[in-house]
Amino acid sequence: MPEISPELLSSVIHPRQSDTHKGDYGRVLLIGGSDQYGGAIIMAAEAAINSGSGLVCVATHSINLGALHARLPEAMFIDWRDRNLGAMIGQVDVIVCGPGLGQSDQAIKLLQLLKVNLTGEQTVILDASALDLIAKNKELMPTRSKLIIMTPHQMEWQRLSQLRIPFQTDSANLAALRALVPGSKGVLVLKSNHTKVFDTDGNIYTNPLGNPGMATGGTGDTLAGIIGGFCAQFGGKVNSVLAAVYIHSWAGDLIGQDHYVVRPTQISALLPRLMKKVAEKL
Amino acid sequence: MPEISPELLSSVIHPRQSDTHKGDYGRVLLIGGSDQYGGAIIMAAEAAINSGSGLVCVATHSINLGALHARLPEAMFIDWRDRNLGAMIGQVDVIVCGPGLGQSDQAIKLLQLLKVNLTGEQTVILDASALDLIAKNKELMPTRSKLIIMTPHQMEWQRLSQLRIPFQTDSANLAALRALVPGSKGVLVLKSNHTKVFDTDGNIYTNPLGNPGMATGGTGDTLAGIIGGFCAQFGGKVNSVLAAVYIHSWAGDLIGQDHYVVRPTQISALLPRLMKKVAEKL
Amino acid sequence: MPEISPELLSSVIHPRQSDTHKGDYGRVLLIGGSDQYGGAIIMAAEAAINSGSGLVCVATHSINLGALHARLPEAMFIDWRDRNLGAMIGQVDVIVCGPGLGQSDQAIKLLQLLKVNLTGEQTVILDASALDLIAKNKELMPTRSKLIIMTPHQMEWQRLSQLRIPFQTDSANLAALRALVPGSKGVLVLKSNHTKVFDTDGNIYTNPLGNPGMATGGTGDTLAGIIGGFCAQFGGKVNSVLAAVYIHSWAGDLIGQDHYVVRPTQISALLPRLMKKVAEKL
Amino acid sequence: MPEISPELLSSVIHPRQSDTHKGDYGRVLLIGGSDQYGGAIIMAAEAAINSGSGLVCVATHSINLGALHARLPEAMFIDWRDRNLGAMIGQVDVIVCGPGLGQSDQAIKLLQLLKVNLTGEQTVILDASALDLIAKNKELMPTRSKLIIMTPHQMEWQRLSQLRIPFQTDSANLAALRALVPGSKGVLVLKSNHTKVFDTDGNIYTNPLGNPGMATGGTGDTLAGIIGGFCAQFGGKVNSVLAAVYIHSWAGDLIGQDHYVVRPTQISALLPRLMKKVAEKL
Repeated sequence: MPEISPELLSSVIHPRQSDTHKGDYGRVLLIGGSDQYGGAIIMAAEAAINSGSGLVCVATHSINLGALHARLPEAMFIDWRDRNLGAMIGQVDVIVCGPGLGQSDQAIKLLQLLKVNLTGEQTVILDASALDLIAKNKELMPTRSKLIIMTPHQMEWQRLSQLRIPFQTDSANLAALRALVPGSKGVLVLKSNHTKVFDTDGNIYTNPLGNPGMATGGTGDTLAGIIGGFCAQFGGKVNSVLAAVYIHSWAGDLIGQDHYVVRPTQISALLPRLMKKVAEKL
Repeated sequence: MPEISPELLSSVIHPRQSDTHKGDYGRVLLIGGSDQYGGAIIMAAEAAINSGSGLVCVATHSINLGALHARLPEAMFIDWRDRNLGAMIGQVDVIVCGPGLGQSDQAIKLLQLLKVNLTGEQTVILDASALDLIAKNKELMPTRSKLIIMTPHQMEWQRLSQLRIPFQTDSANLAALRALVPGSKGVLVLKSNHTKVFDTDGNIYTNPLGNPGMATGGTGDTLAGIIGGFCAQFGGKVNSVLAAVYIHSWAGDLIGQDHYVVRPTQISALLPRLMKKVAEKL
Repeated sequence: MPEISPELLSSVIHPRQSDTHKGDYGRVLLIGGSDQYGGAIIMAAEAAINSGSGLVCVATHSINLGALHARLPEAMFIDWRDRNLGAMIGQVDVIVCGPGLGQSDQAIKLLQLLKVNLTGEQTVILDASALDLIAKNKELMPTRSKLIIMTPHQMEWQRLSQLRIPFQTDSANLAALRALVPGSKGVLVLKSNHTKVFDTDGNIYTNPLGNPGMATGGTGDTLAGIIGGFCAQFGGKVNSVLAAVYIHSWAGDLIGQDHYVVRPTQISALLPRLMKKVAEKL
Repeated sequence: MPEISPELLSSVIHPRQSDTHKGDYGRVLLIGGSDQYGGAIIMAAEAAINSGSGLVCVATHSINLGALHARLPEAMFIDWRDRNLGAMIGQVDVIVCGPGLGQSDQAIKLLQLLKVNLTGEQTVILDASALDLIAKNKELMPTRSKLIIMTPHQMEWQRLSQLRIPFQTDSANLAALRALVPGSKGVLVLKSNHTKVFDTDGNIYTNPLGNPGMATGGTGDTLAGIIGGFCAQFGGKVNSVLAAVYIHSWAGDLIGQDHYVVRPTQISALLPRLMKKVAEKL
C-alpha cells in the first residue's frame, strides 16, 4: 500500500502562472458553525484561505459573523438561513460542509439544500456532523457531485459505514465507501493516528506523518479546510486530497517539534510557507 | 510607456516634518462593508491606517462594528445609515467607496449621498461594487471631486466602460476614462497581472511588480485603502496613486518570496517598514 | 515541607503516545464569564487549550461568544442558560467553575446545577466568585466529585475558611480544607507570593517560583485553566495540580525576565513550548 | 525649563517588591467609547494594562464589549449606563475619562456621575471629549480629586483655556490651569510636537522625545492610558505623569526607527519590555 510522499506533494503544488487572477484559484463555500460550534467553521475557513483558495465564503449562524471577520477579513459571509444560499451553492467550485454544523433541524435543511443545488461539476467535502446526519439518513448524501470526499474519524466512520472499529479493514472500508456514493466518485479520508485515504477506484494510501500533539479539537476542521482549498486550486481529484492530508501532518510535525500541543490555527498559519517551499523545490 | 519606478516612490514618500500633527496626514472615510462583505472594508481600512492616514473612519453596516474594532481600534466607526454621514463626507479629505459595498438599495443610497455631499476639493476612490453600480447608472458618478480614482479589474472595467476585455486597448481605455468623468480629473487603475494606470491627461503607466500569490480575495480592497492613505498624506494626485500601486505590489513580492499565497493583511502590516525605508533612503 | 520541583513536573508531563486521539486528553468544561467579566473565562479557556486539553467547552453569558471565538476558535460554546448544560456537566472529565462568574442569581443557579449533575468521577476546580458564593452558602459545594480543587487567594480563603489572613497557618488551613469537603478528596491552592498547596491527606507543598510581575488581573484565571487542562490530560490528582502551579510560575518567571508586567495570555502562549521541553527532557 | 530625563523615569519605575499582589498596583477605571469611537477607549485600556495596572475596568457603550474582550481579556467591563457605575467610581484609585467619549447627553451624564462619586482621594485623567465638554460647561470639572490631569492637544486647550494657540505661553498656560482647578492640584499635559507638562505648583517640564510618525489617531488615547497605569502603580503625582509622557515617546521613537507610522497599539505592546529595562537598569 503506497505511502503519500513528498513527490506527490510536489506534483500537486506547482508554481502559480503569472497570468492568473483570483478566480483561477477557485471559490470555496464552507457550511457549518452553529451557535455552539462557530469556532469549527472559522478554523476550516482559516485553513481554506491560508491554503490558497481564491475566494472563500462561509455560510454559518449569524452569531458567528463578528468572530469570523475579526480573525478572517478575507472571508465572505452568508447567513446560513439566507434564501440566496442555494444559488450560491450552485456557483462555487468546492463546498466544505460539516465543521461545527451540529445536528439541528437547520443542519438537516442545509444538507438538503446542498443536495438539490449541486450542479454535478463540484467537489464536496463532508466532515463531522454532516457525516453523522448522513449516517442517520442516507438520503442526505449529496450525490450530484463530481467528487465526494468524506473525512470521518474512526467513530464517525463506524456510524456512517456500520463497520465497528475492529472491522474497519481496508476491503470493508472500500466496499462501504462505494456503497455510500453509488454512481459517484468518492474519497474516504479515515482519520486516525495513521490516516488512510481510500477512493472508489480501489486505491488506498497511507499518511506517514502526524503526531499525537495534533490530538486536539479543531485539527479535523483544519484538514477539511485544506482539502477544500487544494481541490479549489489544484482540482477536485484524489491527489489534491492526498496532498492536503500530507501537508496538514507535515505542518503539524514541524510545529510539534517544539510544541507539546499543536494548535490547529498554527497549522493554517504555516501553510503558505510550506507550499512555497514545495512549489519552488526549496 | 513609462514603468512606475522606485524613484517615483521616493519622490512621493518623504520624511515627515517634525512640526506636524495627525490632521496634517489627512482624514480618510471608507464606505463599504455590507452584512455579507464586512471583511472587505476592514481590509481597506487596515491598509489606510498602516499607510499612514492621520484619521480613518469607516462607514459600514452596524453588524461589522465588533470585528472592525477588534482588528483596528484606531478606526472610527459610523453606521452607514447614520444621518450624519452626509455631513461627514463633506469634512474629510479622501473617500474610498466600494469595498464590500454590495449592490443593495442601501448601497445605491450611499453613492447618492456621496455625490451630493462632496465639496469639490476631495479625492474619491471608487472600487468594486461602487463601480458596478455606476456601470448600471452613470448618474451615480461622484463628479464633484478634485480627483476621481477608479480601481476596477478587467471584468469590472468591461462593465463600466462597455469595452470587452480584448478591446481594452490603451487608447480605448483613455477615451472611456475621459467619457466617464467629463469635466473632472480622473485616474484609472486597471488591475490585472500587469496593472496599468491611466489619467485623463493622457498619461499611461505600467506597474512592473506583482505576483500571482496576490491573486486572492482582499488584495484589491487593500490597494484601495493604500491609495486612500497616500492621497490623504501626499495629496490627491496621480503620483500618489502610482506610489500606492507600486508599494502594494512591492510588499506582495517581498511576502511572496517565501509565501505561496500572500494574505492581504500581510501587505498592510508591512507598509510602515517599507515606507520608512523609502523615506530614509535605506 | 517539600517544594514543587522540576522532577515533579517531569513525572507528570510525559510524551504523548502515538496511538491516541483527542478524547484521550480529556474534556474540560469551563463555567464563568458574566456580562461584566467575560475576559476571565476566556483567559481560563485559553490556558486550558494551550495546556493540552483534548476538548474545551465554555459555558458563559451569551454576550461573550464573539470575543471567545475571535480569540479561541478551538473552544466550543454553550450559553450558560442553556437547558442542556446540566447534561453536559455529566459528560465531561473536568469542570473549572468560577472565573468571571460573578455573584448573581444566575451564578448561584450554575453552582446548583453543577452540584446535582456531577457523576462522582469528575474533577472540579473552584475559583474566584465560585468560592465566594460557597463561602456564603456551604451547601453549594459540589461534593459529588472525585477531586475538588480550590484556588483562592488569601482574602478569598479568609472568606471561605473564616480564617483571617494572619491565622492562615498550615495546620489551620488543612483543618479548614477538610471541613469544607467532608468525605471528599480535596486540594487547596492558596495563592500568594509563595503559593502553597494542601491536600486532604495532609500533604503540603510550596511553590518556589513566581514573581511580582504576575500580580495583574487574569493571572489566577489562567492558573485555574492550566489546572483544568492538566487534570484532564494527566488525571485528577494532586500531582497534576502541583505541576500546573509550577509551570504557571515558571512561564511567568521566563516572561518576567524581560517584561515588567506579565500578561496572563503570554503565560498561556508559552505553555506548549515549555511542556515539550519537559516531556522531551530538553 | 527642565527636560524630562531618563533619570526621572528611573526614579519612578522601580522593581516590584516580591510580597505584593495585584491590589497593590492599583485599580483603573476608564470611561469612554461611544458607539462611534469605541476603539479609543480600547486603546487607552490596552495602554493601562500594558503599563502595569493591577486591575483595569472599562465603562463604555455596550456595543464595544466584544471588541474589548477580543483584544483585552484582562479588562473588566461595565456598561456605561449601568447604575452601579457610580459606586464603582468611588472604589477605584484612578479614573481616565474621555477617550472616545463623544459629546452626547450620555457623555455629559457620565461626567456628572464622575464628579459626584469621587472621594477626594483619587486621581482623574481627563482627555479628548471630556475636555471639550468641560470647555462648554466648567461645572463638569471633577474637582473632588487628589489630582486632576488634563491631556489636551493645542486646539482642545484653546477651547478649554480660551487661549488661542499663539497665545498659549507658559505663563498663560499656568494661569489657565490654575483657574480651571481652583483649590485642587492639577497637571496639564499640553500635547504638541514638543509636549510640555505644567503643574499648579508652577513647574514646567518639556518632553525631549517623540516623532511625527506618532501623528496618527489613537496616540493620545494611549498616552492617557499610560498615565492612568502609572498613577495607579506609582502614585497620583506629577512624576508619574512625566514618566508616562516620556516612556510613551521613547517607545514611539524606538518603533519609529523602522516604521514610517507608529501604530498606538505598538507603543502599548512595547511598554513591558521598556519598563523592565528601566527598573533593572539594563
